[in-house]
Amino acid sequence: MRPPEQELEYLGDPETSPLRDSGSNHSPTHLGPSEEEGRKQRGVGSPYLFIQLNELLGSPQNQEWRETGRWMLFEEKLDLEARRWSRPHLPILSLSSIFELRALLTTGLVLLDCPVQSLSELTEQVTRVEALNPEVRERLKLVLLQRPRHHMQPMCWSAARRLGTSLCRGGHPTEMPSSAEEPPLKEQLQSPLWQKLPPGTEAAAVLVGELDFLTQRLGVFVHLPEPVVLGTLTEVPLPIRFIYIILGPPALGKGYHEMGRAAAVLLSDQRFRCSVGQASSPQDLASAVDVFLGEVMVLPPGGGDLTERISPSKCLSVLHKRLPLRLQESKDSCNGNVNSKRDRHGYEHEPQAVSKELQRTGRLFGGLVQDIRRKATWYLSDFSDALDVQSFSAILYIYLATITNAITFGGLLGDATDNIQGVLESFLGTAVAGSIFCLFAGQPLTILSSTGPVLVFERILFAFSRDHGLDYLPFRLWVGIWVAFFCLVLVATEASVLVRYFTRFTEEGFCALISLIFIYDAIGKMLSLTEAYPIYRPGLSEDTGFAPSGCFCYFPDTKGNMSLWKGQSPENKDAALRMVLGLANVSLLSPPECALRGGQPRGLGCHSVPDIAFFSLLLFFATFLCATILKHFKSSHFFPSKVRKVISDFSTVLAILLGCGLDASLGLSTPKLIVPIEFKPTHPGRRWLVPLFGANPWWVCLATALPALLMSILVFMDQQITAVILNRKEYQLQKGAGFHLDLFWVAMLMLLTSAFGLPWYVSTTVISLAHMDSLRRESATCAPGELPHFLGIREQRLTGLVVFILTGLSIFLAPGLKFIPMPVLYGIFFYMGMAALNSTQFSERVKLLLMPAKHQPDLLLLRHVPLSRIHLFTTVQLVCLGLLWAVKSTAAAIVFPLMLLGLVGIRKALQWVFSPQELSWLDDPVREENEKKVQEQKSELIYQLMAPEINISVN
Amino acid sequence: MRPPEQELEYLGDPETSPLRDSGSNHSPTHLGPSEEEGRKQRGVGSPYLFIQLNELLGSPQNQEWRETGRWMLFEEKLDLEARRWSRPHLPILSLSSIFELRALLTTGLVLLDCPVQSLSELTEQVTRVEALNPEVRERLKLVLLQRPRHHMQPMCWSAARRLGTSLCRGGHPTEMPSSAEEPPLKEQLQSPLWQKLPPGTEAAAVLVGELDFLTQRLGVFVHLPEPVVLGTLTEVPLPIRFIYIILGPPALGKGYHEMGRAAAVLLSDQRFRCSVGQASSPQDLASAVDVFLGEVMVLPPGGGDLTERISPSKCLSVLHKRLPLRLQESKDSCNGNVNSKRDRHGYEHEPQAVSKELQRTGRLFGGLVQDIRRKATWYLSDFSDALDVQSFSAILYIYLATITNAITFGGLLGDATDNIQGVLESFLGTAVAGSIFCLFAGQPLTILSSTGPVLVFERILFAFSRDHGLDYLPFRLWVGIWVAFFCLVLVATEASVLVRYFTRFTEEGFCALISLIFIYDAIGKMLSLTEAYPIYRPGLSEDTGFAPSGCFCYFPDTKGNMSLWKGQSPENKDAALRMVLGLANVSLLSPPECALRGGQPRGLGCHSVPDIAFFSLLLFFATFLCATILKHFKSSHFFPSKVRKVISDFSTVLAILLGCGLDASLGLSTPKLIVPIEFKPTHPGRRWLVPLFGANPWWVCLATALPALLMSILVFMDQQITAVILNRKEYQLQKGAGFHLDLFWVAMLMLLTSAFGLPWYVSTTVISLAHMDSLRRESATCAPGELPHFLGIREQRLTGLVVFILTGLSIFLAPGLKFIPMPVLYGIFFYMGMAALNSTQFSERVKLLLMPAKHQPDLLLLRHVPLSRIHLFTTVQLVCLGLLWAVKSTAAAIVFPLMLLGLVGIRKALQWVFSPQELSWLDDPVREENEKKVQEQKSELIYQLMAPEINISVN
Repeated sequence: MRPPEQELEYLGDPETSPLRDSGSNHSPTHLGPSEEEGRKQRGVGSPYLFIQLNELLGSPQNQEWRETGRWMLFEEKLDLEARRWSRPHLPILSLSSIFELRALLTTGLVLLDCPVQSLSELTEQVTRVEALNPEVRERLKLVLLQRPRHHMQPMCWSAARRLGTSLCRGGHPTEMPSSAEEPPLKEQLQSPLWQKLPPGTEAAAVLVGELDFLTQRLGVFVHLPEPVVLGTLTEVPLPIRFIYIILGPPALGKGYHEMGRAAAVLLSDQRFRCSVGQASSPQDLASAVDVFLGEVMVLPPGGGDLTERISPSKCLSVLHKRLPLRLQESKDSCNGNVNSKRDRHGYEHEPQAVSKELQRTGRLFGGLVQDIRRKATWYLSDFSDALDVQSFSAILYIYLATITNAITFGGLLGDATDNIQGVLESFLGTAVAGSIFCLFAGQPLTILSSTGPVLVFERILFAFSRDHGLDYLPFRLWVGIWVAFFCLVLVATEASVLVRYFTRFTEEGFCALISLIFIYDAIGKMLSLTEAYPIYRPGLSEDTGFAPSGCFCYFPDTKGNMSLWKGQSPENKDAALRMVLGLANVSLLSPPECALRGGQPRGLGCHSVPDIAFFSLLLFFATFLCATILKHFKSSHFFPSKVRKVISDFSTVLAILLGCGLDASLGLSTPKLIVPIEFKPTHPGRRWLVPLFGANPWWVCLATALPALLMSILVFMDQQITAVILNRKEYQLQKGAGFHLDLFWVAMLMLLTSAFGLPWYVSTTVISLAHMDSLRRESATCAPGELPHFLGIREQRLTGLVVFILTGLSIFLAPGLKFIPMPVLYGIFFYMGMAALNSTQFSERVKLLLMPAKHQPDLLLLRHVPLSRIHLFTTVQLVCLGLLWAVKSTAAAIVFPLMLLGLVGIRKALQWVFSPQELSWLDDPVREENEKKVQEQKSELIYQLMAPEINISVN
Repeated sequence: MRPPEQELEYLGDPETSPLRDSGSNHSPTHLGPSEEEGRKQRGVGSPYLFIQLNELLGSPQNQEWRETGRWMLFEEKLDLEARRWSRPHLPILSLSSIFELRALLTTGLVLLDCPVQSLSELTEQVTRVEALNPEVRERLKLVLLQRPRHHMQPMCWSAARRLGTSLCRGGHPTEMPSSAEEPPLKEQLQSPLWQKLPPGTEAAAVLVGELDFLTQRLGVFVHLPEPVVLGTLTEVPLPIRFIYIILGPPALGKGYHEMGRAAAVLLSDQRFRCSVGQASSPQDLASAVDVFLGEVMVLPPGGGDLTERISPSKCLSVLHKRLPLRLQESKDSCNGNVNSKRDRHGYEHEPQAVSKELQRTGRLFGGLVQDIRRKATWYLSDFSDALDVQSFSAILYIYLATITNAITFGGLLGDATDNIQGVLESFLGTAVAGSIFCLFAGQPLTILSSTGPVLVFERILFAFSRDHGLDYLPFRLWVGIWVAFFCLVLVATEASVLVRYFTRFTEEGFCALISLIFIYDAIGKMLSLTEAYPIYRPGLSEDTGFAPSGCFCYFPDTKGNMSLWKGQSPENKDAALRMVLGLANVSLLSPPECALRGGQPRGLGCHSVPDIAFFSLLLFFATFLCATILKHFKSSHFFPSKVRKVISDFSTVLAILLGCGLDASLGLSTPKLIVPIEFKPTHPGRRWLVPLFGANPWWVCLATALPALLMSILVFMDQQITAVILNRKEYQLQKGAGFHLDLFWVAMLMLLTSAFGLPWYVSTTVISLAHMDSLRRESATCAPGELPHFLGIREQRLTGLVVFILTGLSIFLAPGLKFIPMPVLYGIFFYMGMAALNSTQFSERVKLLLMPAKHQPDLLLLRHVPLSRIHLFTTVQLVCLGLLWAVKSTAAAIVFPLMLLGLVGIRKALQWVFSPQELSWLDDPVREENEKKVQEQKSELIYQLMAPEINISVN
């Protein structure tokens, strides 16, 4: 408790000399020798500082302190009229207010280490200004001790009712002189802000106001060596580190308010606070302001409107991204080297180091052995780490996603293979393969599933075996055996390390092809439905006078007709009799029933079921639209964000339910999913275990090596690219990856599923990422306007295991699945194809082709690569896609996995056409994703969920 | 040509003293006495200044000038790598670069009135710096005379090919020393920028660069008393007013570049240029910089990234709005009083003066006489003013909108009145009423049309007359007579002046009601279609073994069956015979045909036409979605904005065409629009002229006064609110309004259309505004990033007249309209209802009810009114809407125009609940529209087009 020898100077001209050299002729307030020691102990303080601006409002007779603004990273302004906090926004200051503040800092009272314990002590210290006469000093103390009126959140109003009006309204100055001295109120502790603030947050209070009894401006800057909670001075009872009091005689305009804002913004700057920590004189503070000024960004005059609110997420996204970053580097920032490791876009450019898991050991199965060793050490914790409530929601979410996938892919696979593999096989296979993988694999966060590429290949394989008169399942078994063998070879030779040579060009070309196949097939299936259920067109025979609408059952003899009545109840007979009254030999039986009873269906309408075609179309579009709209519901503004997220995550499930409900409510005989009633293979003509040869000749076991080679390429790509994405550094996985171990288990499961005629499984990107996202740990507290910090993923094996056990149990629900109409599934597939296609940078660039340069979005890509080059690159991709499509449509479709390698070759050739710099923008996944993140302001994993739903691992 | 006595000072410390008092001890460059005279003549110059930043780029051995940025209102940066101009954006400067610039201005060479005529003269002047030795001076001259390399628009490349590479690449300094002296190139004159620049635009060139032979910084600021075109110094051959050369020794970082940007931004500030015009010493320039600094906006440090590009339209909308405003006030801005008339939101708050046309004269028909007098003086020019190419596109657009309206409203009116008035009447009435109105009305820009409220009332009237057994058309004739009479009374008493007492609350309540009626009716009509064409449900009789799909025609005797074959060709007979082979007494005729031929349709399927119901639903949704999507196409980024605008404007027409095409391609017998084949009333039982009494009792002519009174309220509201909107000050109409004259003609036309049984017409807001929009005159030239200036509306009578004559001629196209399916029209009505509902502020506030406060948009409304009060206001409106709906659904529906007055009363009562300040935000149309304009950055009239398509004049 040292009374510092202050010297108070008042500002003559606020615009003079804000950046003058330190050898100025002004005599600033300086500190006594005892300060010199305290300064060395002064720490940087918490990286989080809550700053509150209290202003004296009201008529001169009835002034009261009111909170009008608050800051942590961003500014929140209290809209007094609307009684609500604005959204967090970037503060815009006027330069003159900073200069005035700077002048006041150098000339006003500065208490750099003032160990006060209470507000009254502080008031004593602050008012020890020589220029003040005693009477003014006393009045000043009264004003400062008055309790401020905070803007409480809505709950305050109910609390206020209980306590009377004293809570939200500070009392009259003369009535309650020491009211601000009270201990923190219960309501302060209950405020939502208090719950959200990071632990260790300190506070600063900026008090500004006009007092008619003052004749000169009074500025007092206080730094407390140990932060102290000072009653109800701030909205939340945080320990206060800084106090800045700016009082003065009444003046025109918003000068004091703007100075208060400038002070708050200064204090919200981490580096400025560091400088305060190291300052020994007011002059040092002025230099700190100068450093601040050297870093500010200036917008040209726009009429001086400082009420503009720049949303941190919308406009200055890079800026926004950088602000929290700076916070995390509170130590660095004091040394002045903030963005040392970051390039000018604010991202870390780590050397593209190959992760440890992907380094070649040089020994046979060396990688596999390493993986097993590494994973074994974590095996127990893989179960104990799962014990958290979060796991339950993760299980529910991933379970629904998995069975949706099993249903949709099962349905399509049944369609593609004449029901040799159907929904039941899909459920069973998913459960068995998934459980085994989760128990033993290297990366248990991975979810195995049917994927687009494998489905496409399986369809080609089926068509091939059918065209060549082969017995499909044994043929497929041999393919599976060979694939497992090739994959083992790949594991043995540690081929997984090659995966980093595949670029976005390859991935996107492949993804676009699969998406197009999905879209094409969905539409094709719908069109084939209208052929199966032809549309009734009366116009066809209008001129003949016939309307061939009907279909009736003609029985050649009366006996046959009479046999119809057997087994009918009397009531039905009555009705039937009434209907065919007067008819000797016809009835209105449906065509199949008619044939069954020995009649002959007659009439053009016999082969059509009315209404089905259009209703199927309606179902198809309704499902597609519902899924699309619900998926985008997340970015709407309705309902709390948690509700939105749930709706968006379950969009596919909801869309299927809507389609089924629509179908059930009308009760039309739309084509439905085929599901066996008992637990047996969907196709009646097969058993579970597949025979080794069946009806196939012996050489099939050798010949299948060729398609298996192609399939192996596909499996390798599909599996490993997903694995690379899942094991990215940004997810901060602690237990490491297991590329070789994963591939080993995929190969083993390929063998198992082939032997039982179940679908083949590899890792699926989208569900796996959703799995990780549902297990992400985030900081519960953060500053207003800031996104929560990512703390890591809950790495364990239990959630996946439970999901697949549940999937296995769901086989008994399978009979309920027969109510799902096929058009609904086609709608989902159409949606998946569209979503996957839209998620690629490729489709973004195709859209650029149609946009005039003037209206193109301000992508970083466009700033660095000439438009003509971008278009050239896009055109090359389009041509490749056309070629892929052409190959896929011919008889040579089976070689399409080879085309992957072709794409890699073309990408290699592009190096002669494009400069490395251009390619780094056009074909560098890391850079582009960063850009996307900035644009969309999504957290890391959520962005990934925008990727294909289609489960094309190569997204 | 005076060589000024310059004194060159070099900057010691660039950060010292940028804002020091003018009595500094530095000795600045000062001007000789001759300057003093020149300064007085110096004008402000053009308000438009094009500023180009040329930088010396390349290796020290091979440096060349390159244009790297340009400014008018906003900054455009050349992305060198991508070889394209960035979009116009707000420049972000660093404060230190401005300080450095300020220092250089005070210490460098300043030539305030330097009358040079050529670049070489300029070079001479600029290099007369004492500190330079002769050799350096010569080298400097060479550098300055080198031709800069501009970034030409794409056309440059073809031109460059013709001329060799010399055009776009400046030559080597030693090879082409005086190349910048050449006259303007043809390509310069052809650049798109040159075509767009406003006349009188002057230019400024900022030249910055690093020269290794310089040892000190060299800054030369030149102001030319008379602007001169200096060869190819700037991209476009504009006369140059300012030149700022900043050269210096090589330095680290982007210092020179940032100083150049700062100089350009300074020069782009109108007030700074004014100060330069009045400056007499470098010190004055420094003060001007200080004034500039006093106005800038400061953003807190964000890592010093100056590459951020803030789109003027997105983020700082208010700022953007203000920048052009400042330009328009170039005179004011020099006096420092920029926004004197504007409030803190930047809008002019003109006193709510009642316009001259709406002042009561106090005499009977006084307003009418005044209107006629005023309009008579303009009558000739009303035709001569139309002679412009723009009129053609206006005619086409409005013609299509008018007939779309005539078709849709005609179809619905026919539906509502059992085809007593149909599409043909709609065309005829529109043509006759519209032409007469355009020829004689007070505001000929108004388009008459059927409107929602009148349609709703007419339907209620029809239901009333049907329920009470009255002859509709004579009954309606008497209503029309009375309405005309009441309207004449309103004209005589100058009641139009009352219109300003109706507020947004009334308008929106009414608009929402009509919209809901439209939506309800459209859905209701679609559901009634599924009743008319029942859906075939096989499930119904599955258990009986019967599938009652068919319908067959039963002939009691063989004779009847044989009569079927008469008049059939042998081929058809064959087919028919084959089909009914073995049948004695049935056939598959369609039910009506069967009955016609003496048979009896039998079977459950006889009363359904398959597929129609679902196909109608598909058509309905397709039309609705197509119209909605195309309407919003304007805000997408694809295709040039003109194409987008056309597609958006014609969205309804395109949606109808799509629906018709879809229907025609399938050839199903969907219900179609009923149109007579010849020119006669749609209903066969009526003639054109309506009899005075018909089958009605005599007292009808008196009793109709009551509904007519209600109708008069409706017509008055509907007509006058549209008129007020059309005659708003912001449209800058020169020929004045004619409220009384308009109402007079509406009354007369009401009489005419009633007598001929044609629909009733009043002004329609949306088409009228579209009409005005298509006739708006805009400045052809503007700065990049700036919206074109609005110059006024082409006020004339000819476009409207031609539109209605064309509509009249279109009656002969009417038979083609019978191909329009009714579901398509219902879809359009559904769309209209939805669009109208969405365009109101009311619906915005209803949406707020569903949004958590955190996610609400940053509306000005929300900043000033507590959320609970907003919700209360919305709830009151919702309750009113519920009451209106309840009244409308009861037998008392006919009194619904009275409810309008009820709304006015409720609004009046709200003044006791809400404070005037709150009401001014919640219920002030002017303020809210300004806000919308800011948000959406639309030009004035385009905003209006977002308003209801439904043609509810009370939007």
